[in-house]
Amino acid sequence: MARKTKQGDPKGEGEFDIIARVFAPLAKDVGAFGLKDDAAILMVTEGEELIVTCDTLVAGVHFLPDDPADSVGHKALAVNISDLTAKGARGYAYTLSLALPPDISIDWLEGFAAGLKAVQEQTDISLVGGDTTASPGPVTVTITALGQAAHQHAVMRLGAMPGDRLYVSGTIGDAHLGLRLLRDPVLAKRWSLTENEAAYLVERYRRPGPNNALATLVRNFARAAIDVSDGLVGDIEKLCAVSHVGVAIDTGNVPFSEAAKKALAFDPTLLPVLITAGDDYEVVLAVSEKSVAGFESESEASGARFTALGTLLAAKKGVSVHDEAGKTLKIKDKGFKHF
Amino acid sequence: MARKTKQGDPKGEGEFDIIARVFAPLAKDVGAFGLKDDAAILMVTEGEELIVTCDTLVAGVHFLPDDPADSVGHKALAVNISDLTAKGARGYAYTLSLALPPDISIDWLEGFAAGLKAVQEQTDISLVGGDTTASPGPVTVTITALGQAAHQHAVMRLGAMPGDRLYVSGTIGDAHLGLRLLRDPVLAKRWSLTENEAAYLVERYRRPGPNNALATLVRNFARAAIDVSDGLVGDIEKLCAVSHVGVAIDTGNVPFSEAAKKALAFDPTLLPVLITAGDDYEVVLAVSEKSVAGFESESEASGARFTALGTLLAAKKGVSVHDEAGKTLKIKDKGFKHF
Repeated sequence: MARKTKQGDPKGEGEFDIIARVFAPLAKDVGAFGLKDDAAILMVTEGEELIVTCDTLVAGVHFLPDDPADSVGHKALAVNISDLTAKGARGYAYTLSLALPPDISIDWLEGFAAGLKAVQEQTDISLVGGDTTASPGPVTVTITALGQAAHQHAVMRLGAMPGDRLYVSGTIGDAHLGLRLLRDPVLAKRWSLTENEAAYLVERYRRPGPNNALATLVRNFARAAIDVSDGLVGDIEKLCAVSHVGVAIDTGNVPFSEAAKKALAFDPTLLPVLITAGDDYEVVLAVSEKSVAGFESESEASGARFTALGTLLAAKKGVSVHDEAGKTLKIKDKGFKHF
Repeated sequence: MARKTKQGDPKGEGEFDIIARVFAPLAKDVGAFGLKDDAAILMVTEGEELIVTCDTLVAGVHFLPDDPADSVGHKALAVNISDLTAKGARGYAYTLSLALPPDISIDWLEGFAAGLKAVQEQTDISLVGGDTTASPGPVTVTITALGQAAHQHAVMRLGAMPGDRLYVSGTIGDAHLGLRLLRDPVLAKRWSLTENEAAYLVERYRRPGPNNALATLVRNFARAAIDVSDGLVGDIEKLCAVSHVGVAIDTGNVPFSEAAKKALAFDPTLLPVLITAGDDYEVVLAVSEKSVAGFESESEASGARFTALGTLLAAKKGVSVHDEAGKTLKIKDKGFKHF
């Protein structure tokens, strides 16, 4: 781990000491040298491919400045693992870059590391290196995660075919509702949520995934997959675009949690928001018709929840969204220009 | 490459369009899917180890806000390759995270990409993925670089032995003098520098390395190595500490450029500064006595310049620095507490 703090170190403790004390316990791989070197030396299992992904979270943009530190660590690692999961890859190693304002506290760093640790303990991934730097800007966390999958077993967005069944894991929209609750706690009462339901939504925003069972199911059954991070409809559109397929999504098939259903019952205009808001960190995958039975029985056995969204169509049919009455929904999300 | 800009995109162009146009040409590896996926799928050559390193540059901390954009791209990639070089590893692939303030221009991004491209063209490394995000803070660039080296051929800090010859590549202190010139251009005249000499020093600050020949020499001849990024003396101290050796460094042996010699002649108090300031991105390596002849002839043939700094001693002798008259130098650099 490089040492490049050119400004005041948090609370006067040297950066090296902070790294050693707070982050070194996360470096389980012998090739990480306890973060005492500038680089890690890793072996990739013979016949395995390396899956590489990178995500950055900025305070005030991707998380709230007063989110608990451990939730920031949790989320930073979980969103990267979500990308690996959608490739059917097991997490292996990650690097961590932290750009920190001068007023950051040791408490915050320890909380942040605890969040990383919680995710590590649910997966096989471990910290292998990184960099901490001082910054006059907000806390900025970048993780590059490496995963492994057997050669030619990694799953891409490309490869779905007309006739394939499209599934989504978990539930959609919870994280967005959790963020709304954090910004405006009065909404919990308006949506008639119990305390547990409100807490559940906030947790889904702060501490998504990881779900190890998903990667195995994706690897064994998916022809194509994508993680749902930018919004369900937009991410399905991306998978369809590169796979040259279309799909008609019935919003009646989209899986919502009991808490989200209450919010939707109070305010039906939330529907197009929840299916485009993102931050779900679920996975969408296409399963060929002949694999559907096997997939459904194995996913049930694994305890992972999957919901069928529809059957893929020829590309010329396009991607469309309609409600249970068959009425086409107009999606106005600016990142998604296809309606 | 993920798409997560939650604030205004530079000049109204969508982030996806920016990535496609500016950065996709840097994604040469077929497994990078032209940055159109959330993750890259890479093959690691059988029998090779993977070397992983990560460095972050923050505007105003690690580079000057008005440094040319291409020099920022150049430096961000070159400092990572420097870490790989010191491991004897060839550059292979890298991820790029860019946290960008709202007022960043397309021109800046294109210049930045040109700097990355210039370094890519001098090495075998290519962009495989990353993330661009909006940030209210300064430009923050994080690169995680992956290198390869034959199994058990990667070189660590650990492994130097008493009796080994210690070498350093290139020249030391140029980057620091370049930074001083950028901050106070009057110094060029005071130090009697020609225009070319002043430009050379600034270039060394802005566009260090990479030097491909170094990695091969490190891999074939070094028992231990470290890149000189935090200051020559401090980095030698780190190598010595983990290798359990000592060394007495005669400042008369430290290689300085003609330009640096002029500055030193004018102001001899610069000497302890130049050997501790860092940003050199050279490599220090320990060569066993029996390999010295082979190393010297191969390094000469490669055109790489190496200078012998001394012979490693037993650890109990410690690390010390003395001038040509034998007088011990007191080093006050705060990151380096051993004197």
